[in-house]
This record gives sequence, structure tokens and C-alpha cells, in this order.
Amino acid sequence: MDSTVLYQGKAKNVHSTENEQELRLEYLDQATALNGKKKDHIIGKGSLNNQITSLIFSYLTEKKIPHHWIKQLSSNEQLVKRVEIIPLEVVLRNIATGSFTKRLGVEEGTKLPFPIIEFYYKDDSLDDPFINEDHIEFLQLASKEEVIELKENALKINQLLQTLFEEIGVTLVDFKLEFGKDYEGQIILSDEITPDTCRLWDKETGESLDKDIYRKDLGEIVPIYEEILTRLKGRGA
Amino acid sequence: MDSTVLYQGKAKNVHSTENEQELRLEYLDQATALNGKKKDHIIGKGSLNNQITSLIFSYLTEKKIPHHWIKQLSSNEQLVKRVEIIPLEVVLRNIATGSFTKRLGVEEGTKLPFPIIEFYYKDDSLDDPFINEDHIEFLQLASKEEVIELKENALKINQLLQTLFEEIGVTLVDFKLEFGKDYEGQIILSDEITPDTCRLWDKETGESLDKDIYRKDLGEIVPIYEEILTRLKGRGA
Repeated sequence: MDSTVLYQGKAKNVHSTENEQELRLEYLDQATALNGKKKDHIIGKGSLNNQITSLIFSYLTEKKIPHHWIKQLSSNEQLVKRVEIIPLEVVLRNIATGSFTKRLGVEEGTKLPFPIIEFYYKDDSLDDPFINEDHIEFLQLASKEEVIELKENALKINQLLQTLFEEIGVTLVDFKLEFGKDYEGQIILSDEITPDTCRLWDKETGESLDKDIYRKDLGEIVPIYEEILTRLKGRGA
Repeated sequence: MDSTVLYQGKAKNVHSTENEQELRLEYLDQATALNGKKKDHIIGKGSLNNQITSLIFSYLTEKKIPHHWIKQLSSNEQLVKRVEIIPLEVVLRNIATGSFTKRLGVEEGTKLPFPIIEFYYKDDSLDDPFINEDHIEFLQLASKEEVIELKENALKINQLLQTLFEEIGVTLVDFKLEFGKDYEGQIILSDEITPDTCRLWDKETGESLDKDIYRKDLGEIVPIYEEILTRLKGRGA
């Protein structure tokens, strides 16, 4: 396909298309952790994440959530709407783990009484720092009204994803979302929803079915990601 | 004075008094930084801070700000209302410096377009982590309504303190407040307002007139704190 690479990311490349309002995402066979300090080539990962996120975005289409995903193009490519990315990572937590337990001194695995939202400033040179809403306003990343909209969206998407993962025997522990503005200025969900961006625990065994396997050197991620894909494909079957 | 030490802090001890609703604060000749990792005995510091904070709380009384300070008892002691401390450090920033510049990649000394508020969880074992409003609610440190009240109070106090320091040729860069609840449950300002808890820059020279002198090993703090006390005493004279 004739196109230009507009952006090279850690896990995907962004290509232009003939349509100015659409982009082609190429999912890479690459895993990174610790903000890129740990990096590996993992054959099959790009294709798995492309398929997983396509199934999840397809589910969110049914649920009327506005997002950037249009369709899967090939094993490791998808077509999406062009958006201007809001440089915020919107993290939503249902269960305490990771940086949250360390920051607040809360026991790993504590079920949170309500979904907790955190914002991180997408800036590699600063190691994506945790920020508050005053910082967002100061950095002009989003207006106050937009921050409210981002939080409402994250909560709604959390409910839908919890239902989806519940159906396949998986607990949605936490996840990271990114949003962008489309050509009309509407805020829509973008980026990906995969085991790279969610913490997923098997409901029966409690085992991690996500990138923590890679982060913590617990084993091979391809069979784990394949497991998630297989369960999602078999949903309702 | 007959009393029990209820609490030994980094810069002051808290004593009971004959009146159950009142406490005696004893300001210590002690300086700490890096959450107690750096610590020194500095003769005269306790008395200076006791006098400085007494003058400032006295000014805030005139301005109708509810607070815990009742009166100065001696060179290094003061009488305050007993409160249940809300374990939050409320930080207000007018100019970018310190951790803020590092977190957000902002140039040191940048004048902020509006006062920025940050909350830190007062917990030595966690190194007083930076937290957001969802964390405050989860940890049950304050209700949503109380968080709004804390922010409104901090903004009002900022305006009053800016005016006060302006009069003595000092720029109020940032400061930390602590609040508590009195026996009626009313939120009132507590702790201290001193060069230990404020960043103060001389308006003419830009030099630090605060604990940064100690934090950054720039010299003796006693003459600096004496300078602040002298200027406060001479205000309007």
C-alpha cells in the first residue's frame, strides 16, 4: 500500500492513506516496558494485538461508543480515523496494583470501592508523569469541560469492558485509554485496547493474562495473548 | 509548664495543656529536608519560626481566616486550638520551581497563569506522595465537599499572603498548608506558615529567603529567617 510513515511508536507505526481523514495503523512485533528501557522483538504480538483491539472496538461500536477504529485491514493492520491525540493517558483502576499500591501503601489486589481515574502526561522525555487537573489546565492539554468528558467516557467504557471481560472469565483490573479529537473536534476513543494496555486476571486462577507477564519476566506473552484472542472470538459462541 | 508531649514532629513538639481543647506547640531548633533524611540542629530557628508564624497568623486573624493559632506563649512556644489534622499537604504554586518544574518539564521561575494546587498525602513511610482527588476520596482523607473547601481556603489565603509579602518586598513563590477540624468539625488552617513551609524570593535580588537555603546548602538560614522576621515586624512602620 502506498503510504508514508507519519509516526513510529513503540508498538505500532502510523501510516497515511489516500484519504486524508484516515490512517493505517501497523501493529509491530515489539514489546516495551519501563517507558522503552526494556524492549524485545516478539513474533506474532503485532497480529494478536491488532485482532484483539479490533474485536474490542467492534464491540464498542455496538455499544455506541465513539472511537477511531474503522476496520481491520490485514493480520497486523487496521484503518482508523485521523484524530489529534490528546496527550493524556487516562488510567482507570478497579483493583489496586502496580504504581497505585506503591504510591498509596495499599495492599496488592485490593478491590477498590469505586473506579479510580488517574491522568498521566504523555511525554517520553518526562517518563509520562502522573499529573492532576490543575496541571492539565496549565499545560493546556484539555479544558475543564473536556476533562469531565474524558472521565465520563472512561467510566462508561469501564462498565462495558468489565461486562465483556466478565463473559470470557477475565477480571478487568485496570487499563489505560487515549482519546483524540476528530476533524469536527469531537472527542473520541483512540489508540488500542489490548493486553498491552489492560491488566487482565483470569477469574479462576488469578493469573495475569497481560503485559505484566513481560514486565515481570513471568514467561512468554504470545500464548497468553492468544488465549485472550481465542476467548474473545469464542464469546457467546 | 505541666504537660505531656502528645506528638514529636520534625520541627515542633505538641504538648497537651490544662484545657483539653488547646495545645502548646514548642518550636524546635531543628531543620530537616528530604523527608527527614537531612537533619540539623540550628540554634535560634525554633524561636524565629514561632515568631514569624505568630505574626502571620495574627495577620490572618485580622483578615477573618479561621485558624488554630491563639497566641504566642514564649520565644519558642505558642498556644493553638486542638484540631484533628487532615493528613493532606495542600501545596499552592504561583511560580514554577522544585518538583513542579521536574514533573512537568517547565522552566524554573515560570510565572504560572493561575495558582496551581496540589495535594500530597501526609505519610512519612510513603514519602508524602503526590495524589489526586480520587485518591483523597478512596483514602477517606476528606470528602469531595471538603476538598472544594480546602482549595477555596488555599486560594483565599494565597491572595492574603501575596499582599502581605508584597508589602515587605518578597515574592510568594509557593507554600504548603495543613488544615484540621476543630471540635465543632469546622475546617480551620493549622500547622505553621514560615520560611520552612513557603518559598520566598526577594523581589529585588531574586534570592531565596526560605528553607531552600538549607535544602540546597546555600548558606546559613538563621540570618535569612531573621531578615524575614525583621521585615514582618517593620511592616507598615
